[in-house]
Amino acid sequence: MKILLTGFEPFGGDSMNPSWEAVSRLPDTLYGADILKVRLPVEYHTVRDILECIMEKETPDAVICVGQAGGRATITPEMVAINWMDASIPDAKNVLATGEPVSLYGETAFFSTLPVKAIVSALQSAGVPASLSFTAGTYVCNSTMYHLLDLTTELGLGIPAGFVHVPFICEQTVGRGPNTPSLPLDTLVKGLTEMVRVIVAGEPTGGKQPSGYTH
Amino acid sequence: MKILLTGFEPFGGDSMNPSWEAVSRLPDTLYGADILKVRLPVEYHTVRDILECIMEKETPDAVICVGQAGGRATITPEMVAINWMDASIPDAKNVLATGEPVSLYGETAFFSTLPVKAIVSALQSAGVPASLSFTAGTYVCNSTMYHLLDLTTELGLGIPAGFVHVPFICEQTVGRGPNTPSLPLDTLVKGLTEMVRVIVAGEPTGGKQPSGYTH
Amino acid sequence: MKILLTGFEPFGGDSMNPSWEAVSRLPDTLYGADILKVRLPVEYHTVRDILECIMEKETPDAVICVGQAGGRATITPEMVAINWMDASIPDAKNVLATGEPVSLYGETAFFSTLPVKAIVSALQSAGVPASLSFTAGTYVCNSTMYHLLDLTTELGLGIPAGFVHVPFICEQTVGRGPNTPSLPLDTLVKGLTEMVRVIVAGEPTGGKQPSGYTH
Amino acid sequence: MKILLTGFEPFGGDSMNPSWEAVSRLPDTLYGADILKVRLPVEYHTVRDILECIMEKETPDAVICVGQAGGRATITPEMVAINWMDASIPDAKNVLATGEPVSLYGETAFFSTLPVKAIVSALQSAGVPASLSFTAGTYVCNSTMYHLLDLTTELGLGIPAGFVHVPFICEQTVGRGPNTPSLPLDTLVKGLTEMVRVIVAGEPTGGKQPSGYTH
Repeated sequence: MKILLTGFEPFGGDSMNPSWEAVSRLPDTLYGADILKVRLPVEYHTVRDILECIMEKETPDAVICVGQAGGRATITPEMVAINWMDASIPDAKNVLATGEPVSLYGETAFFSTLPVKAIVSALQSAGVPASLSFTAGTYVCNSTMYHLLDLTTELGLGIPAGFVHVPFICEQTVGRGPNTPSLPLDTLVKGLTEMVRVIVAGEPTGGKQPSGYTH
Repeated sequence: MKILLTGFEPFGGDSMNPSWEAVSRLPDTLYGADILKVRLPVEYHTVRDILECIMEKETPDAVICVGQAGGRATITPEMVAINWMDASIPDAKNVLATGEPVSLYGETAFFSTLPVKAIVSALQSAGVPASLSFTAGTYVCNSTMYHLLDLTTELGLGIPAGFVHVPFICEQTVGRGPNTPSLPLDTLVKGLTEMVRVIVAGEPTGGKQPSGYTH
Repeated sequence: MKILLTGFEPFGGDSMNPSWEAVSRLPDTLYGADILKVRLPVEYHTVRDILECIMEKETPDAVICVGQAGGRATITPEMVAINWMDASIPDAKNVLATGEPVSLYGETAFFSTLPVKAIVSALQSAGVPASLSFTAGTYVCNSTMYHLLDLTTELGLGIPAGFVHVPFICEQTVGRGPNTPSLPLDTLVKGLTEMVRVIVAGEPTGGKQPSGYTH
Repeated sequence: MKILLTGFEPFGGDSMNPSWEAVSRLPDTLYGADILKVRLPVEYHTVRDILECIMEKETPDAVICVGQAGGRATITPEMVAINWMDASIPDAKNVLATGEPVSLYGETAFFSTLPVKAIVSALQSAGVPASLSFTAGTYVCNSTMYHLLDLTTELGLGIPAGFVHVPFICEQTVGRGPNTPSLPLDTLVKGLTEMVRVIVAGEPTGGKQPSGYTH
């Protein structure tokens, strides 16, 4: 079994990105699965070609793309990617998108094919703060998730694939206000390790614990 | 021109729901348009039949469903409804949904056909706090928006239709913790009035101000 | 009866300060009391001389100093001022204080002599979001409250005197992030009016509703 | 050198209290200092007798009392304890205090005599999220800090003494909402260890980094 994990390059003035720091610290094999680690640029469109190229060449059995969600307090598997780009800062190629589709004639949205509820339960049982998220934002994290799921659909791959946001790591809180949530890098690595375990085990989607918001 | 606005019944132990309080205070005509006001039950599925019945009978030229999002600080037009129900509390018919589609073979998601960015700009210009939201949650607000847009698609109506969340009103903050955001009911009514103005004016979608989150 | 209310000049890049906007909109008499309105500079030390001068000349029967607490969601009477200045930005006279006493041999702290709990109850009953605060920060709002209470103690005045923080007003939320709490200026004016009513009525301190945090 | 550290018993329905979990995991000697560990009950007044008894018998050279501040994202040394008790829940002896002094004729407040700014800097340098807090609340944590500093003043001890709040640990976030901040227990232990190092080293108060809030 081969599992592809991606993290992002630093952006927005930071000198590192916890998503890549965590992914790059995983061992090369975990629970018997080969772990393939790729660092993606923070670019709306280049990401699609990179993902397509790797997926055709490496044919992974599962894909977890990881990104930073500064300000969140828990590790959040994303439920859905939407066909929309809308951000106040440009991507690393200086593309500014303030309200346009990721894919001109594409689907409105894709649901993650990762067992997101099982992942949340497993992380919580392992003492890693986790919750299910219903918005991946409208910047490069969301477009990456959209491209990933559009590709797995287009290529007819029935594999688990999706996106997970991680909070700031502790070192990033300095200078960011007195109540900025964070977790140690070790905890992020533990969370990703646990996700790989869930996927290798082929766990079902995680039963019926409620995960949503009541509005 | 005829515009349908809906609000919800109280739920979750509250004695009133600011969405219906605000909708019911609108006059019967606004900017030359007839305002049709309907109070919906907080029920996942009944809402679809009610909406379908009203839309067939009244053939409104636009629909704005309104709901409460306790804890939010601004009025938030929703960008997207997803095909998912997942909440820790049951609806008013005691239906508990902890991870299932709104519509078994339905679309993954629908985008609002309201001019959401124009609405946010107009509200802000009028001194009403507003921002665009990319998640309507996974309770009855989201399923109502999903049913509404599924219906307008199914019926081939090309009308502006969508969902708007409103914060608590000031009176609801008592006993809810020292930093619970709220707005006066008057401000909510002003916000809805401004939305009607934007729709009657047929304003385009609101230019290119960025609205999104950068993760 | 004469009541002195103060607000602050704009600071930190804003073009107005809601504290002064609200104070300046009060009528000249309220519930039979003369309302004296003074705009203070955002300066750690000048404020003391200004307050001392006004209080000697005008001998008010009560003093309410008002300041902005951006990010708070409710109007918050302050319980306590501490003998400490510590902020990342300088005051309007370019004084940067990063950890030093307001008064070299002064008291560690002063409690407000306003009926703070009665004020919170009265505002809530009037539909104005309010809660009691136990920190006025360590910038000019806190030092102003400290100077005020040090002065009333030094001069042997047994008058109600204290400080109240107000949130951003709605217009200030634009460009400040999608979930910035605010209230309309009218609501702030209504809150200050209600405070004057409580003070004129000579209400006791407000009974025994709990106001604190359980950590 | 002998350093006393205290943590609290569980309260408010929790089965453990991270403050005691962290304190109890410290070794018996650290950086050459003897570490004395005591678990305190969550009681407004009993705490004073316990502290007095231990301090007279053991004559520690420094005291750090530790408590839980659920909802905070960082470890927060407290700057000030105030002479006020005011909480919506009773203490463990069923004493409900909704607005009364800790000590009838006592000082209004005491400043921590710990090198709080040096501690914040040291923790941040060690990768432990930390910030200075200016309110310890008005429940048993605050009254404990008040009693401690009142005692060290009364007994004429010139020792470093104060209070530190810690966030929830990761395991406590389950069932507490999707964005509850937390840190691993290991990180809390690392933070307390670093505080002991700063105190043993006799570091000065930590220079002039600003720590405060600008309102």
